[in-house]
Amino acid sequence: MNLDEDLEEAAPDPGGPPLRRARAWLSRAVEPGTIDFWRYVEDVGPVEAVRRLRSGRAPERIRALVGARADEDATLADFARAERCGARLVIPEDDEWPALPLHALTVAVSEEPEKPEHQSDRTKALVPPLGLWVRGTHRLDELVDRSVAVVGARAATAYGEHVAAELGHQLGERGWTVVSGGALGIDGAAHRGALAAEAPTLAVLSCGVDRPYPAAHGALFHRIVDNGLLVSEWAPGCAPLRHRFLVRNRLIAALTRGTVVVEAAARSGAQATARRAQELGRQVMVVPGPVTSAMSVGCHELLRDAELQAVLVTSAAHVIEAVGRLGDDLAPQVQGPSSPRDGLSDVAVRVLDACPVRTGVSPERLAAVAGCDVVAVLRVLPALELADLVEWTGTGWRMAPRPAPG
Amino acid sequence: MNLDEDLEEAAPDPGGPPLRRARAWLSRAVEPGTIDFWRYVEDVGPVEAVRRLRSGRAPERIRALVGARADEDATLADFARAERCGARLVIPEDDEWPALPLHALTVAVSEEPEKPEHQSDRTKALVPPLGLWVRGTHRLDELVDRSVAVVGARAATAYGEHVAAELGHQLGERGWTVVSGGALGIDGAAHRGALAAEAPTLAVLSCGVDRPYPAAHGALFHRIVDNGLLVSEWAPGCAPLRHRFLVRNRLIAALTRGTVVVEAAARSGAQATARRAQELGRQVMVVPGPVTSAMSVGCHELLRDAELQAVLVTSAAHVIEAVGRLGDDLAPQVQGPSSPRDGLSDVAVRVLDACPVRTGVSPERLAAVAGCDVVAVLRVLPALELADLVEWTGTGWRMAPRPAPG
Repeated sequence: MNLDEDLEEAAPDPGGPPLRRARAWLSRAVEPGTIDFWRYVEDVGPVEAVRRLRSGRAPERIRALVGARADEDATLADFARAERCGARLVIPEDDEWPALPLHALTVAVSEEPEKPEHQSDRTKALVPPLGLWVRGTHRLDELVDRSVAVVGARAATAYGEHVAAELGHQLGERGWTVVSGGALGIDGAAHRGALAAEAPTLAVLSCGVDRPYPAAHGALFHRIVDNGLLVSEWAPGCAPLRHRFLVRNRLIAALTRGTVVVEAAARSGAQATARRAQELGRQVMVVPGPVTSAMSVGCHELLRDAELQAVLVTSAAHVIEAVGRLGDDLAPQVQGPSSPRDGLSDVAVRVLDACPVRTGVSPERLAAVAGCDVVAVLRVLPALELADLVEWTGTGWRMAPRPAPG
Repeated sequence: MNLDEDLEEAAPDPGGPPLRRARAWLSRAVEPGTIDFWRYVEDVGPVEAVRRLRSGRAPERIRALVGARADEDATLADFARAERCGARLVIPEDDEWPALPLHALTVAVSEEPEKPEHQSDRTKALVPPLGLWVRGTHRLDELVDRSVAVVGARAATAYGEHVAAELGHQLGERGWTVVSGGALGIDGAAHRGALAAEAPTLAVLSCGVDRPYPAAHGALFHRIVDNGLLVSEWAPGCAPLRHRFLVRNRLIAALTRGTVVVEAAARSGAQATARRAQELGRQVMVVPGPVTSAMSVGCHELLRDAELQAVLVTSAAHVIEAVGRLGDDLAPQVQGPSSPRDGLSDVAVRVLDACPVRTGVSPERLAAVAGCDVVAVLRVLPALELADLVEWTGTGWRMAPRPAPG
């Protein structure tokens, strides 16, 4: 069906096919990260925005952003291409839209000046996405609910990849989703670590979710589709252009509770992601390394930057401590029934956080992860079990499944 | 001459032989770091303190601290032993006593409670020394004026020793005295680095300055005596007892403008020195390392301790930036004529701080040390030369000698 006819029939049904098609068209009309374009779509609504742009009734400034692409329509081809690879377009009107994490971008863009010449560059602008192409079976909002970004250099060292994989594994084991950029080096190691713990992981790409880029990560992406999500603002088929990496980085920062930088050269993209995270009120965490390693120079710069308030982390326990705390600060919950976690001792909280969600582990393992001695673990486990927070699987201890919210 | 007769003749001449002999005796009478003993000596004066202790007229509490040692006198043997190895006893009444740095200990001890049972343990108490046995030809006060402590693990890794030696070398090259504890591992590497730059270095020992402890450092200590100082609160011949290490650490912290920890295991002596330094208002600096290294666990703990306000450093430039700033904060100088350094750009200050005091070096070397590019160095050198801050030796650039204060 012709795009314009389709939109003519647009019912007020939010999320209906014309709305999704409108957002698909808009996501191709102007590169993501463009402040004024996003504001225009917010103001008039996506369907009306497409109508006005197609009929030349949009303001001159907005039409200029779209240019000749106003006359093109690749939406049906995009949807067909998405269907072939098992992808879908998730839009803000969908239930699974990660509205809470992305709210920080809405706040950030509201602080941008009105005049385009004073606004942040597109590569730096903190603007929400118009829609997200998503490939995989998990619900996007659920997967990012307890998530941490682990990012770093592509030209990582063996040390960096080891640490990233270990962090990915431990975070995955304890029910945290590892989010990264799917790149070579640190990103790939973090994804692989999570997958090795049989935990879902999420890669935010700067190209179409059907494009194996980098080519060497084709098999990795297939594994992520099986247990996790590939996510992109760019329609299937889009190429990984250089500036798109920087635009994409704001999503990695926004979707997660905090960003861990494992290795970064001086003045690198990973540093940029860390600064985006801080601007969005997210916790920045940094893994140090040898001062003799060029791949840790950027990490040490971040840790020396007092304004950034980056936390030095050396283990998943440190990461969870940092983002757990921040999660509480950022999202004060409506006063509900008191949580069974309330009133737990520090050691008990650490032991609880050390429990994997799937396979049970020994008290010795819990002690190693929680950073306390076995006696302390054995002392707190009975109380945690009585509170239905942990359970004995017959071979080890794990977190008890959470009761459905009443 | 009999000690008591000698003291009977004590003239009011400060620093005269009886006074020095009294302090030598007191330094053996009670282990250093004992708050009430130091206070008693301050109250009644060292000569009178000895008289009263020898004649049993001192308060019961003070006599109990001395015990049977009140009847002994090893001072003449100590002076003879000192003379044989070229050592001297420097006392607070001497010009070369480092009164300004040690003032922080006087302030700290004034904050200790009166009641002995509420006071800090001797190993932790921040008490000034009663005297310092010093071996070497430099003046003690001059050597510690621009000094930094570089400390760390005895069981250091090759990485740690490399970094400590490099820091020692660069700090020495730029006119800073490296102070450490003369131990195996990081301490030794830092001393050696400074000596390799032909810069004086200072080892604060926890045994007599004539005792080669550790034995493997006999040759190193001889080199330090030739270009630097061995310093100890304990008389020549005293043994390096375990608790003395901790007592000694407060002196390393107090004598210097800041303490750099290079490698430290969890809960280690180097961490203790860092905490002493912070309690004394000194800058704590920490070199990170691989998170996989047990010898960097203590360093990372220090960096994660928000109260400590430790600064991550990876080079001598970082160290000088940190202690330079703190030096200004701690010792606000009487308003004098404006310094030619005032108004220099950040880059110019870094290039200036990168200049060695002795051998001239190339602009490329300055750029590497200052952490900027060569073009920037070449841009600021003419201004520095015009301000008489740097000079060309014919083969390289170095700091210009300071004009004598007018």
